[in-house]
This record gives sequence, structure tokens and C-alpha cells, in this order.
Amino acid sequence: MTDCVFCKIIAGEIPSDKVYEDDFAVAFMDIAPANPGHTLIVPREHSDDFSVMPDGQSMERLFSATRRVALAALKATGAGGFNTIINTGKDANQIVMHTHVHVIPRFPEDGLKPWTKKDIPKEEIARIAAEMKKHLG
Amino acid sequence: MTDCVFCKIIAGEIPSDKVYEDDFAVAFMDIAPANPGHTLIVPREHSDDFSVMPDGQSMERLFSATRRVALAALKATGAGGFNTIINTGKDANQIVMHTHVHVIPRFPEDGLKPWTKKDIPKEEIARIAAEMKKHLG
Repeated sequence: MTDCVFCKIIAGEIPSDKVYEDDFAVAFMDIAPANPGHTLIVPREHSDDFSVMPDGQSMERLFSATRRVALAALKATGAGGFNTIINTGKDANQIVMHTHVHVIPRFPEDGLKPWTKKDIPKEEIARIAAEMKKHLG
Repeated sequence: MTDCVFCKIIAGEIPSDKVYEDDFAVAFMDIAPANPGHTLIVPREHSDDFSVMPDGQSMERLFSATRRVALAALKATGAGGFNTIINTGKDANQIVMHTHVHVIPRFPEDGLKPWTKKDIPKEEIARIAAEMKKHLG
């Protein structure tokens, strides 16, 4: 899409620190990193978000590239682990509306907090599960 | 593995609120949810984490199931978006050492914070990118 910043990065119209590319995806450094080595893995073909990314081996291609990039980020930074995160939708903190995967290397006491847990009654969890099963039957 | 809580859930030896299963993966509700509809998608075959999950269409199978489950969670909860998260390694807040994907439905003002950004110099980001490329060549 002509007004998509990630499409422009993929096309080389906007500069980036690219670390990997193949015929399906491109990976480059996040310019607003949560930690050293924070990288984005982005399918070349535009889709607005993960929920509508086209089928046909796209999961295999995207996440195989993601894992390769993540392991390289661990080697480059000496991190002991990493988070792989996809934000889908503005309510989920997606900022650029082009499907992308974040890899964030993690270090002891790096200041990044795990999510907080909510006190949701077991009965409510079971009710939602039953509702989900209707859509997955 | 005999001492793995997720292997026991998959085998039905520990109860769970299952919402989906196929011959590759099982999905059930997280017992410590960050939000209503927080679900885990877990490959049946044990691997300690995402970095060592066996190859061979595992990405396609795992993330196709993840997307199906996420879309069902949106319908069941009315959420406007979702986060898809894999924690790899204890430094990255992985608690159960069996590969799993979190789906967390998201709602406006649900109290979950996006990660904080660090002030890392552009030169340092470029240096790490160059190091990563050595491992991705």
C-alpha cells in the first residue's frame, strides 16, 4: 500500500537496519526498541494485521523466519531468552497497520514487566470457554 | 514428559477448560488470565520452548490453530483486538517449560500496558544489526 510505512521500508524507500530477507519476509530493527536487539519480522505482501494475513504457508514462512531472527538476536546480544509478540488491532497496541512480529531479547532485570493477572472467577472462564467452543466446533 | 503440567493437561490427567484440539495442538484457558478469554495454544508433542520446537510444518500448524482460537476468543468476549505472545526462556517470563502460545483478548482501557521503550543510540542498534547479519548470512 502506498501509504504504509512498512511497505516503504520493504521497498527500500525508507531506510532501515535490515538484518534478514527472503522472498516472503523482511526483518529490520525496531526504531523504538524495548530492549537491545528488538527486531520486526514483516511479510512482504501487505495485510493490515495477523487476523487477515493470507493463508497458504504464510504461518510457516513467517514464524520460521521469526525463529531464525530471534536466535540471531540472542547470539548478537547475549540475551538469555526472548518474547515473540504480535499485536492485532489498535486496542492491542498495534501501531503500524501492516502485519508484523516483534522479537524482543530479554535480559535479567531488564525492567520489562510481565502482564498483570486479573481475578476472573473460574465460572466466568468456563463460560467464555463454552462460548469459544461454539465458534470452534 | 511425565513431570510436565501441560503434557498432563493434554493427556487429560489434569483438568482444564479446553476449547480446541486437533492432531497437532490443544488449546485451553489460562488459569491465571491477563484478561477474559486468555487462552493457551500448546503443541501435543513436548518441546521445552519455541526455540527448539521440531520443524516440519509445526509453525503452520501451531499458528493456524492460534489464529482460529484468537478469532473465537474475539467473538466470545467482544474484544476489539488481541496479543499473541510466546515467552521463550525463564528470562523472558516463560513459566511452564512446554512450548505454548498465549492469546490475550484486548479491550479499551483494560489496564494492560504496552512495553516501555528504551533509549538506545542509533549507532548501537546498527551495531547489533550488523552482528545479527553475521548469524543470518
